[in-house]
Amino acid sequence: MPTALFQPDPPPPPGPDDVERWRRADIVARPRRLARLRERLVGEHVDAYLGLSRENSRYLTGFVLDDGEEKVAGDSGRFIVSGDEVVVLADTRYREQAEEECPDARIEESYYDLPARWGRLVGSLGAVGDGGTRGHPGGRSGSGSVRRVAVEASYASHALWTALRAAAPGIELVAADGWVEEQRAVKEPSEIERVRAACGVADAALTRLVGDIRIGTTERELALRLEWDMRTHGAEALAFDVACLSGPRAALPHGSPGERRIGSGEVLLFDFGAQVAGYRSDMTRTLLVGEPNARDMALHALVAAAQEDVFAELARASITGVVPGARSLDGVARKVIDVAGHGPHFGHGLGHGIGLATHELPRLSSRGPDDPLPAPSVFSVEPGVYLPGETGVRIEDLVAFDPATRRSERLTRFTREVTVVGE
Amino acid sequence: MPTALFQPDPPPPPGPDDVERWRRADIVARPRRLARLRERLVGEHVDAYLGLSRENSRYLTGFVLDDGEEKVAGDSGRFIVSGDEVVVLADTRYREQAEEECPDARIEESYYDLPARWGRLVGSLGAVGDGGTRGHPGGRSGSGSVRRVAVEASYASHALWTALRAAAPGIELVAADGWVEEQRAVKEPSEIERVRAACGVADAALTRLVGDIRIGTTERELALRLEWDMRTHGAEALAFDVACLSGPRAALPHGSPGERRIGSGEVLLFDFGAQVAGYRSDMTRTLLVGEPNARDMALHALVAAAQEDVFAELARASITGVVPGARSLDGVARKVIDVAGHGPHFGHGLGHGIGLATHELPRLSSRGPDDPLPAPSVFSVEPGVYLPGETGVRIEDLVAFDPATRRSERLTRFTREVTVVGE
Repeated sequence: MPTALFQPDPPPPPGPDDVERWRRADIVARPRRLARLRERLVGEHVDAYLGLSRENSRYLTGFVLDDGEEKVAGDSGRFIVSGDEVVVLADTRYREQAEEECPDARIEESYYDLPARWGRLVGSLGAVGDGGTRGHPGGRSGSGSVRRVAVEASYASHALWTALRAAAPGIELVAADGWVEEQRAVKEPSEIERVRAACGVADAALTRLVGDIRIGTTERELALRLEWDMRTHGAEALAFDVACLSGPRAALPHGSPGERRIGSGEVLLFDFGAQVAGYRSDMTRTLLVGEPNARDMALHALVAAAQEDVFAELARASITGVVPGARSLDGVARKVIDVAGHGPHFGHGLGHGIGLATHELPRLSSRGPDDPLPAPSVFSVEPGVYLPGETGVRIEDLVAFDPATRRSERLTRFTREVTVVGE
Repeated sequence: MPTALFQPDPPPPPGPDDVERWRRADIVARPRRLARLRERLVGEHVDAYLGLSRENSRYLTGFVLDDGEEKVAGDSGRFIVSGDEVVVLADTRYREQAEEECPDARIEESYYDLPARWGRLVGSLGAVGDGGTRGHPGGRSGSGSVRRVAVEASYASHALWTALRAAAPGIELVAADGWVEEQRAVKEPSEIERVRAACGVADAALTRLVGDIRIGTTERELALRLEWDMRTHGAEALAFDVACLSGPRAALPHGSPGERRIGSGEVLLFDFGAQVAGYRSDMTRTLLVGEPNARDMALHALVAAAQEDVFAELARASITGVVPGARSLDGVARKVIDVAGHGPHFGHGLGHGIGLATHELPRLSSRGPDDPLPAPSVFSVEPGVYLPGETGVRIEDLVAFDPATRRSERLTRFTREVTVVGE
């Protein structure tokens, strides 16, 4: 194995000191995050905000739900931001956790029955802008002045929306979409640190695995080994299930690893990420197994070139200060692939923001808006070319983009060079 | 370790033959499942059904999304059932998969942009009851007769609902809730087989782990070992993240395993499940570590007695044919715990249905409806007593309930007796 091709020193996994530092950074940052949301509420003429996304809840309140746990947690972790307080809902199962993680919030019981509690709950709130209630002990002095409540319309089901409206017809619900997500797209230093740490865990895991890959091993076994390495070396969870796809299956950009055994002359695609202190990484490498064939080598070079052009554009932005648009950046990679005649084989967008969620703003896509990239932000750059039934190549790295500091840092450090395994 | 307490022979993990048999059973069952949904559509006077839940999609179309994958899959896996066809949405990333898994469906491209395609898509459908179009080749003969579409209102976000309505104001959206879920609550034999197989994987994993538990090991390490065993011995995935909570942390009914080391005289609670061919298990055991203390022994006996009374009630139903109500069954367990003065410490429902989802119908709760249990059905029986800051005990088993065959089978076979570990 050409070890010299790998970054020599993947960073050590984060330790308890790091986790504690990040926890404190969040505590310091949360009042600012809440203040920005309240500014938005004032601008939108709403009095309070009902949040349902687990990521937004963690960002604003500190309440942690594991990925998917929101499906079985009932109303727990849902929250309301009013003028003078944060209310976190929790049923009996989650009350202790809420008190521990959200010491500044009022914890209110709710057990899959938010509509039944809605009118009373809103009646207990002080509206944004009711500065006078802020000093009241316990913050329960709400005078029933809340009339318009923003609700996360992409997370509230239509059924919940309808039930809330029916429960308190006098309270107007306003569809909010992206109000917190837009803020989350701009990363704080400690958030970038955590994504970087997650990238380090993933880099180290692939570095350890790659020398042990043997022809004849199944995709599923390799995926499990990569997962296990991450989770026993610093990852509190996966960012998403490891994709490990070989040969023609690499043309399935989101297939699951199966019982297929890897063979010489094929590609071997890993798409994987770690989670560290809530923040995630995402990386794809397409390795070549045994005796690489010319077609796969050429596709790898093409995809790498498309990615290079994007990196060059980002480096230019760091110098000129002119921030590229999200769709334009997609276009930079797409042009390289188009010119080679593979435009129809690059069927997805260039990338996506990442942080508490694997996929968040900004969205870099030919179908998305061309807004200037948020900064500082962290997003993936992942061009790919897929030949159905034959092969597929994708290379994905995360970039921390911060033109103000003239920096554009690649957070995933595993080599982007052609890497041959199973020799 | 008192090995004699364990079921002597956990079943072998399922093999490829089992998986193939189940796949075929689904193929045979799907037309019946669709026919039942279409009957419902006729009864509700709607012409078609838009489904968004990944479980409903797998149940009705065969399209498989991993848990959580729906968050990054865009519209892929969403589906429409009309009078004469099933349409499955897939973007380029998922097209090959959709063609493979849903050979009888029409695959339509959609890439996070369902509203833009909605009017044309609905216009291409034949309404339920348009029997005349059924024979048309390709099933694309829809005459635009679809006017009312049921939409899964608990899965459609309010934002999507609003966008669909705006995109095609002439198409009425009807909130559907539980139409497929009620059907899924009644289990086919091959579904029960799969839950049983998942229970077997979990039983075997705990059986192997329990002799190796040592005082001083962390919760997190035990949880990882249990997970790893399941996933390398027949589980394609976990049903949910393993909960492993020790001592006073067992009072957190949904806490995550942490760095706490288990100690003598404490409880050690495992709540965990496997997934086999899409179907899930769920089991909780509260073990006693080292020298058990009298308080924990007494709570264990109490919770076991509450569970016993529920099993006795189910056995009675199998004999008499009188099917108990879901709330009444909760009451059977609750009464035992109430009488002991621990009513306030049993803060959750008795149980939940399980199948493709970990939590599905029926819901067995003092706050839920008292409808007769569906049959055949599979659900958990999981009374618990939690003393905040002190200790917690929960015992959870899955039961396959089928009074028609005079059977009520406990699918989780790991011993329910007091089990002492770490001696």
